[in-house]
Amino acid sequence: MTVNKQWIYARKPNGEVGPEHFEPHDAPMPEPGPGEALVRTTLLSIDPASRAWMAGRTYRAQLEPGEIMAGWGLGEVVKSNSDRVAPGDLVSGEFGWQQFIALPAGKLIKENKAHKPEHLLGVLGITGLTAYFGMLDVGRPQPGETVLVSGAAGAVGCIASQIAKLAGCKVVGTTGGADKCNWLTGELGFDAAIDYKAGGIHRQLKAICPEGVDVYFDNTGGEVLDAALARMNLFGRVVCCGNISQYNATTPAGGPAGVPGFLVTKRIRMEGFVVMDFYNRRHVAEARLAKWVAEGKLKPAVDIVEGFENMPEALAGMFQGKNRGKLAVRV
Amino acid sequence: MTVNKQWIYARKPNGEVGPEHFEPHDAPMPEPGPGEALVRTTLLSIDPASRAWMAGRTYRAQLEPGEIMAGWGLGEVVKSNSDRVAPGDLVSGEFGWQQFIALPAGKLIKENKAHKPEHLLGVLGITGLTAYFGMLDVGRPQPGETVLVSGAAGAVGCIASQIAKLAGCKVVGTTGGADKCNWLTGELGFDAAIDYKAGGIHRQLKAICPEGVDVYFDNTGGEVLDAALARMNLFGRVVCCGNISQYNATTPAGGPAGVPGFLVTKRIRMEGFVVMDFYNRRHVAEARLAKWVAEGKLKPAVDIVEGFENMPEALAGMFQGKNRGKLAVRV
Repeated sequence: MTVNKQWIYARKPNGEVGPEHFEPHDAPMPEPGPGEALVRTTLLSIDPASRAWMAGRTYRAQLEPGEIMAGWGLGEVVKSNSDRVAPGDLVSGEFGWQQFIALPAGKLIKENKAHKPEHLLGVLGITGLTAYFGMLDVGRPQPGETVLVSGAAGAVGCIASQIAKLAGCKVVGTTGGADKCNWLTGELGFDAAIDYKAGGIHRQLKAICPEGVDVYFDNTGGEVLDAALARMNLFGRVVCCGNISQYNATTPAGGPAGVPGFLVTKRIRMEGFVVMDFYNRRHVAEARLAKWVAEGKLKPAVDIVEGFENMPEALAGMFQGKNRGKLAVRV
Repeated sequence: MTVNKQWIYARKPNGEVGPEHFEPHDAPMPEPGPGEALVRTTLLSIDPASRAWMAGRTYRAQLEPGEIMAGWGLGEVVKSNSDRVAPGDLVSGEFGWQQFIALPAGKLIKENKAHKPEHLLGVLGITGLTAYFGMLDVGRPQPGETVLVSGAAGAVGCIASQIAKLAGCKVVGTTGGADKCNWLTGELGFDAAIDYKAGGIHRQLKAICPEGVDVYFDNTGGEVLDAALARMNLFGRVVCCGNISQYNATTPAGGPAGVPGFLVTKRIRMEGFVVMDFYNRRHVAEARLAKWVAEGKLKPAVDIVEGFENMPEALAGMFQGKNRGKLAVRV
């Protein structure tokens, strides 16, 4: 191959992100410099955070139109000018939406080929670690407690929920549509699921959790956050993981009306986190997640789209709620 | 005396609370039953939370029109049918707005007559404990950090701020009007004060805290909370103590727009608390507060209104920002 196919982030979305915000580009094959390795991308992760990167500064700099679209990926080392990696190694890194990349070897993470590639991006990767540390370290569920997870059919949500089940909790998820609700209760063992698109989220939540909610793992913000705050028990914890309901918003929504009032009267702790903050303990978490998967206690739901040409549609589809579990594109 | 003067909570305020929501009432002198004591009220605390009690259920049941107005007070035991207290004892308790009350002795807290009565309701009482536990246990300021306190000229705010100074922090307060700002920086040793009534709170805060804010002790909610969230540093903590800007509101305000977005990207912990949750450690806190006051390290700002007849005006005045420090009425 002499061409490196890329997707350029071409235009800033004003509202829903779609294929029209990206443009394909044929770049020359990159050549690794001293200390660098050339990687062929094999699997690219599609994440809700991508949309937030376009909107403004987050935990990383804002993406600017004209740049290669950012994204985490898995790949194979093709050529190496470093002792740290060798051709044939399976690696992950911040590759962006492109087929090849030359990167300093220090920026590559060597991955274990014994695992399925899609699990390395999902349950055993950033997704799984986000779910693990967010639920256990920030949410701190106790056996017998009730845990609510929004975006529960999403990549992080479906792992976080299963971890709460392993911790001995009653687990309720919100998602869009009856099909995904059935998938959560049927396939993934949720105690109950709430279809937020069916409306009456306050009423549904009250009916399903008459005992209140002790931990709310928030992937969405918006109306589920409002409803959850109203149902939280004393000393409840709200884990702020994501805000996907707002990433496509053209005007900033008002914040949750229960803040700060409910936080005071119900002594709620509401806390945000970013998975990198817990990286010093990633190996313990990875080992536990891998063990649970191997034992069949944790279902590593993955949703693979075939073909690099489908990257923009895959991202847009995620915001339309099309995926079940971890979404990735096979390049 | 044969008459027990009381203030009845007569009408639910729709907006600002004022004298028109209370009615004086002459009740017969109460007679203590078995195990009870008769207390003559000497000092009654005026608290922002009073307004919240009228609006709905908080950490206590909602107040209903027709009830004696609720409130914490200090008094002298006049007569006792219990071994636990004796005539002449100084006690505090939930007396309500009345000159005399007969209560089970177990509901009275014996106070140390060596302290000034107004300090027992302020810096050495619930106010001081709220400031102490909220700042140190929930906010956890570190030396060298920047601490912002809203409602900083209020009872809890001015103690919480001084505790943060003792913890080695740069301390900035918000309050209404230049006079109170000067009082904070002049009398109480704040590093800076912000007059929220002067407008441009985001701009003022940015100018005074270019290094960002690590701990925000929130007594007010509203626009100061919005501005603080935008200025918080990574791993910042927001102590949700009160929401005084909203207690008089006729329609619920939208929540802070930075929630949950900023909480995630900046890994902010936002946590509410109620002082009773820390009561098992109150004696340690009281001893430290008393020592700091005795050493002149903590100024126990008190604002005393004379005369039981002025209770309603005192409460209304607090919401107009008239008090400096702990407000109480000498009965």
